[in-house]
Amino acid sequence: MTEPARPLSVRKQDTLRRLRDDVDLWVATASADGTPYLMPLSFLWDDKTLLLSTAGSNPTARNLRANPTLQLTLGHTRDVVHIEATAETLQPDEISESEGDAFAEKAGFDPRPLPGYLFFRVTPTKIQAWREVNELKDRVLLRDGAWLV
Amino acid sequence: MTEPARPLSVRKQDTLRRLRDDVDLWVATASADGTPYLMPLSFLWDDKTLLLSTAGSNPTARNLRANPTLQLTLGHTRDVVHIEATAETLQPDEISESEGDAFAEKAGFDPRPLPGYLFFRVTPTKIQAWREVNELKDRVLLRDGAWLV
Repeated sequence: MTEPARPLSVRKQDTLRRLRDDVDLWVATASADGTPYLMPLSFLWDDKTLLLSTAGSNPTARNLRANPTLQLTLGHTRDVVHIEATAETLQPDEISESEGDAFAEKAGFDPRPLPGYLFFRVTPTKIQAWREVNELKDRVLLRDGAWLV
Repeated sequence: MTEPARPLSVRKQDTLRRLRDDVDLWVATASADGTPYLMPLSFLWDDKTLLLSTAGSNPTARNLRANPTLQLTLGHTRDVVHIEATAETLQPDEISESEGDAFAEKAGFDPRPLPGYLFFRVTPTKIQAWREVNELKDRVLLRDGAWLV
């Protein structure tokens, strides 16, 4: 049973709640030769950017250092929050103590003492939210970094 | 509360059930210039391959025609089935009627009469399944196309 399509304002509200409460999301990156890589990672949302962390030797980190373009999705396939973004690579000592603590608390692990771990500051350029086919129209919530609603 | 790690045989059973019962999965592809693209699509599993369909003008289709390497995931971020695969592009008339009917029934839409739609026969080369960190060990179920269990 398909629910009625949500108006943009409700989609934004739902999206912000997912960004605040969800612990993990899907992260799609690509290597320089165009090989896609899809992995779940924990994240921390600060109202403007998402903070990720993974070992520098992992394909996600290697891909982002070479090519900062990525796509991320929250939720299941019938409650999609789809994010296009760019990532800035940060060393652990470039994260404030309070942000590092907040990340560790939400993610359930603290990357800072782990050898070779990096952080990535992910800035959304486009955010879309849809559940079923009837929500494909009007699914763009944020474009060129600015909320449309 | 983390459950005990599942033995390989249980992970395979769970994975096969998800491949049979789940309707959608995440599909990560990349363009020739290395831009990742992540989208949910419906699929049909035939015990060896997954059948996908999307409009030929969609980035997923354009990417797969240029570069058949892809990654797919089933389930949520804490119940991951992760598939590395290659895709073969098929025109609608290359799909048998019974397979096309089965796809339409499962996906809830029939791509065959839709102008410009293509099918993709996706053959897994590697399948991994894990829920939490304690299942990262022994997560490979299928390697080089052969089940390990």
